[in-house]
Amino acid sequence: MEKTIDCEKNAKRLTKLVEARLASYFDKRSDVSLYEAMRYSVAAGGKRIRPLLTLTFCSAVGGGEDGVLDAACAVELLHTYSLIHDDLPCMDDGDERRGQPSNHKRFGEWKAVLAGDALQALAFEKLLGSGLPAGIAVRAGRILAEAAGPAGICGGQTLDMELESNNNPELQDLYRLHHMKTASLIEAACLIGAVAGGASPERERAARIYAQCVGLAFQIRDDLLDRYGSAAPLGKASGADARNNKATFASVLPREECEKFIAEQTYTARETVRGVFDDGGMLTYIANTLANRQN
Amino acid sequence: MEKTIDCEKNAKRLTKLVEARLASYFDKRSDVSLYEAMRYSVAAGGKRIRPLLTLTFCSAVGGGEDGVLDAACAVELLHTYSLIHDDLPCMDDGDERRGQPSNHKRFGEWKAVLAGDALQALAFEKLLGSGLPAGIAVRAGRILAEAAGPAGICGGQTLDMELESNNNPELQDLYRLHHMKTASLIEAACLIGAVAGGASPERERAARIYAQCVGLAFQIRDDLLDRYGSAAPLGKASGADARNNKATFASVLPREECEKFIAEQTYTARETVRGVFDDGGMLTYIANTLANRQN
Repeated sequence: MEKTIDCEKNAKRLTKLVEARLASYFDKRSDVSLYEAMRYSVAAGGKRIRPLLTLTFCSAVGGGEDGVLDAACAVELLHTYSLIHDDLPCMDDGDERRGQPSNHKRFGEWKAVLAGDALQALAFEKLLGSGLPAGIAVRAGRILAEAAGPAGICGGQTLDMELESNNNPELQDLYRLHHMKTASLIEAACLIGAVAGGASPERERAARIYAQCVGLAFQIRDDLLDRYGSAAPLGKASGADARNNKATFASVLPREECEKFIAEQTYTARETVRGVFDDGGMLTYIANTLANRQN
Repeated sequence: MEKTIDCEKNAKRLTKLVEARLASYFDKRSDVSLYEAMRYSVAAGGKRIRPLLTLTFCSAVGGGEDGVLDAACAVELLHTYSLIHDDLPCMDDGDERRGQPSNHKRFGEWKAVLAGDALQALAFEKLLGSGLPAGIAVRAGRILAEAAGPAGICGGQTLDMELESNNNPELQDLYRLHHMKTASLIEAACLIGAVAGGASPERERAARIYAQCVGLAFQIRDDLLDRYGSAAPLGKASGADARNNKATFASVLPREECEKFIAEQTYTARETVRGVFDDGGMLTYIANTLANRQN
């Protein structure tokens, strides 16, 4: 599947699988109102990049899609919880997320805290209940827990909050923050797919390198889009990060440097998987798409 | 080990094991300040009832203590996270916990949210990394996740918050709230111990009934202690629940009825485990201690 158009079709098909499975978690009627708040943010969409990476890496080492679908969705549940908590008034105080009111704007603060908490628990419930062989489920669960904890997302958000009061951060601080807050879960998504598909150590290593490159390129693109918009002229600072005085890659590096960085990371990602996986084409397609996206 | 004094010694010994293992999780130096906030609440003490139940049930079905210690501590980490979030300004707004400032009073709101989030992740990391056989670790992890999620602790806290605006709740509502918010994790603690020790289905069933009885007795005692204090005369309402206008078992039932309820549940718990487990004495001791405690 080397053609871009086939990859695009395949990505759409996989995203549909993910959407349907995620929706199924909230099918059953419950009179606990918390379910509604959980469903609201999960159903709000987003690019579903993480589960797409999990599914693709599982296929790329010869594993089936069905067996890993719940694990892929677990990564998305965890990602969704972290967005809900990031938006809280005591954190980044975000009123909107994905074009609709953020969870606490819609349901109130206490319910947003609980919706996030419950989505983290649900992530582990779905991953461990996915029917993956027990040894693999345990490894995948540990990978997810480590990415979620103090050395991953939560530690990264801590650095992010602390950096807000630092007007002149080192590039090194941004790397570290980004690595913990964003790349850790992207790496977990790739690794869980590889592990679920029974990857060799060599392939696991390649999955890790790919994930780190794609994760970094993804973040820098995010920062560029926030600072300059998708089609705005150079130098026009209009995004949320700038309003919040937030240091990002786009604020500490010139725009051209950021673009060069993205291109380099994406190149390394592509080279890392070339010939190592059964379907490097799909992995190349995802790396290119994330690097060049306009939203 | 039928004598109370031996059980007391054994409980102290097990609690020490738990304290030492919990402390070891925060041994390593980290420059991420979040660790300090996590450690603060974990080290704040408490009765360590849940890990004690896990360890005791594992022994009671013939399992060893060492293998289940991390799983027992995982339950306590999860309990600690839930207390931090319960105390948040947007929830119960508690200034003190275990005789010291609550987590958000000490570290600020955003860090308290993240400390709780990270402790939930750490719970799963420790449980899945405990070295239990993979099949058992997966079952134990699912039990913990279900107790933590929307049908457990988070759902229970939702009902609790919603009940605050209800001046005249049904006893049935209190049962349900309590079952989700408190009993679910006590049940998980007992079951994880039983499962880790390789319990038969009959013993698992007995563990579940014991947990439900002990959990209910525990909650009613909590409510009584909050409403009447440990040595206050009948009818003196001075506790936090009363100040918050919170409906509890002690506010909807007469004190004598509550005491009778506790005695009945404790009796059933004792009868359920009699003769079924290798060391029913220790389980009886715990049930009695929780029912009759003064703090």
